[in-house]
Amino acid sequence: MPASPIRKLVPYAEAAKKKGIHVYHLNIGQPDIETPKMVLDAVRNSNFTILEYSHSAGNESYRKKLVKYYQSVGINIHYNQIIITTGGSEAILFGFMTCLDAGDEVIIPEPFYANYNGFAVEAGVKVVPITSHIENGFALPPIQDFEKVITPRTKAIVICNPNNPTGYSYSEAEMQQIKELILKHNLYLFSDEAYREFTYEEKQFSAGHLEGVDDNVVIMDTISKRYSACGGRIGAFVTKNKALLDATMKFAQARLSPPGFAQIAGEAAVDLPADYFDTTKAEYKSRRDLIVSRLNAMKGVFCPNPGGAFYAMAKLPIDDSDTFCQWLLESFEYGGATVMLAPATGFYGTPGLGKQEVRLAYVLNLSAIDAAMDCLQNALKQYPGRTI
Amino acid sequence: MPASPIRKLVPYAEAAKKKGIHVYHLNIGQPDIETPKMVLDAVRNSNFTILEYSHSAGNESYRKKLVKYYQSVGINIHYNQIIITTGGSEAILFGFMTCLDAGDEVIIPEPFYANYNGFAVEAGVKVVPITSHIENGFALPPIQDFEKVITPRTKAIVICNPNNPTGYSYSEAEMQQIKELILKHNLYLFSDEAYREFTYEEKQFSAGHLEGVDDNVVIMDTISKRYSACGGRIGAFVTKNKALLDATMKFAQARLSPPGFAQIAGEAAVDLPADYFDTTKAEYKSRRDLIVSRLNAMKGVFCPNPGGAFYAMAKLPIDDSDTFCQWLLESFEYGGATVMLAPATGFYGTPGLGKQEVRLAYVLNLSAIDAAMDCLQNALKQYPGRTI
Repeated sequence: MPASPIRKLVPYAEAAKKKGIHVYHLNIGQPDIETPKMVLDAVRNSNFTILEYSHSAGNESYRKKLVKYYQSVGINIHYNQIIITTGGSEAILFGFMTCLDAGDEVIIPEPFYANYNGFAVEAGVKVVPITSHIENGFALPPIQDFEKVITPRTKAIVICNPNNPTGYSYSEAEMQQIKELILKHNLYLFSDEAYREFTYEEKQFSAGHLEGVDDNVVIMDTISKRYSACGGRIGAFVTKNKALLDATMKFAQARLSPPGFAQIAGEAAVDLPADYFDTTKAEYKSRRDLIVSRLNAMKGVFCPNPGGAFYAMAKLPIDDSDTFCQWLLESFEYGGATVMLAPATGFYGTPGLGKQEVRLAYVLNLSAIDAAMDCLQNALKQYPGRTI
Repeated sequence: MPASPIRKLVPYAEAAKKKGIHVYHLNIGQPDIETPKMVLDAVRNSNFTILEYSHSAGNESYRKKLVKYYQSVGINIHYNQIIITTGGSEAILFGFMTCLDAGDEVIIPEPFYANYNGFAVEAGVKVVPITSHIENGFALPPIQDFEKVITPRTKAIVICNPNNPTGYSYSEAEMQQIKELILKHNLYLFSDEAYREFTYEEKQFSAGHLEGVDDNVVIMDTISKRYSACGGRIGAFVTKNKALLDATMKFAQARLSPPGFAQIAGEAAVDLPADYFDTTKAEYKSRRDLIVSRLNAMKGVFCPNPGGAFYAMAKLPIDDSDTFCQWLLESFEYGGATVMLAPATGFYGTPGLGKQEVRLAYVLNLSAIDAAMDCLQNALKQYPGRTI
């Protein structure tokens, strides 16, 4: 089981803080945006007397509400096609467990969300990475790159759209290419859509918008980022494939039910006013614009403009991103502060890739981002392993 | 992946209810006892503004509180030896994932909690059952029965104490026998202690009370039954084995954090007044006494007196417990009501066992139990597959 590449630097951050250094956390996707008050109030104003197990697929009232939510984003499903999960994490684990046998293979464009590795280990599944590149903003790799690695054991493709860690938002044309591929080879498409609402140029094109692949597509969803409700641990496993739903329900029943309180929160969130995402998106967009422009203004730094999520990947003039990120916490400060970044190496399945790249989560407000970029700019001038 | 044996009868119960028949649910361990108000109020009165990820091991404040709880039951641990899990379910899954490789074997006295099978499938682990018997109240099988099935691939023993489904509470002498066994063969002991407080004759002897086996013992715990908080999905993985804690933390980090709201509930529960369990236990004990005496008064029925938990296993004069339990819901009523039981077949790993046994969860009040026993008594006279 691999250790979380994002969390392994935590002891260094704690040590820096003990020295009195302020750490700007751009390393983890924990938004600073407040959870909507009406979402928290739904839990606080609840009046049940027994905290009972819910249905293993989640409360029926919540699943029925979610049908309305999915309709609002152009995805038509029945509430029986939704299984509420313990975070998006469990939806991914369920997909791996249900659709793949031990030794089966899943193709994932890299860099990818590092915890896919962990869930793959738990399910005994082999992750086969195909590389996307910072030069074209981490667009979908050519379909022939997928074709090259498909074997009789390949059962599924995972995409994250918009993408963590790259921020890339797949176009409709790319999604149609993926559709042809999964039909040709009879593969599952696991589409992690945690950041669905957070696209800044075009609306997200969901795997749920693809036609004629109902039995292939599974949407892995979560309320964590959408409503800044990461700690609730509520997600969803969504598919129109009846056999797959039946099989996944067995896993859902084994763990009895998803968390009770946060289902109430999730249900309330569906009734947020239509402009909720406008405000949140406007905030994230201004942060993205700032961080991307600040990064690209630094000598030797390249940061493609991410179309979605709240992450940016940047190529830095450094020898090794793991060493650099640790050095930032251990040996650097600028005006009493430093910045914590996620080394990109942990997001690549291919050893050796990502050594000059870092992921920045723009989950801090504009002035904090500005200050963090001041730190980074100075750090790049001082870091002993700088390459320019 | 096996379907939940307890939940497979649910459609028949729903059909019975649609016909206007009242169903007494003795089939599932969902207590009717109210969740303590101060536990729910802790969540309702919380005032955070962002529902953030917690530490992957759970909130430090909660883990520190739990140290106090464990001290109160004679178990001395450090808060760093506790990983908060998503229900007891996840603690069991973590144990299987961390301690066993695919193909390794775990010995479990049967009948056992059926979902162990599901977690074993998820971890690719083989469950090796050894049979305990209703005639002696499901006491620990002789140690030579364990010895007979130990192979080089045997890595762990699972006990549930007090036991679900049998209600048996292992004696100190039995626990010492298990200790000798795990030391001799260098095995892990996974001790599921969900029902720790619910013993009616003697105090529970915990695996945490055993000396000299710190590296072998893992306690799988949960607040679900203890505080009637099943829907919160909060449990704990407790061990003094440092390497095991480190490895398990990787699984914990992959799924990010346990549920946030219910950690607040769990933390508040530690401060319940000392007499909280007295009241709850007195209620369960009177239910146990009633159900056991009613069962044993029925012709051809045998029900050993369970020392703990809130389950009783009964041997009935019937051909097949699955058929009987379905018949109760499909083809029987007494005064407009019927009773839902759990066929014991689902709790045995050995095919063919449990055909004359059912599990009864005494999670209803005394008058409901009385009425349910009236139903059962009459059902046994009418059931076409009765054997006397």
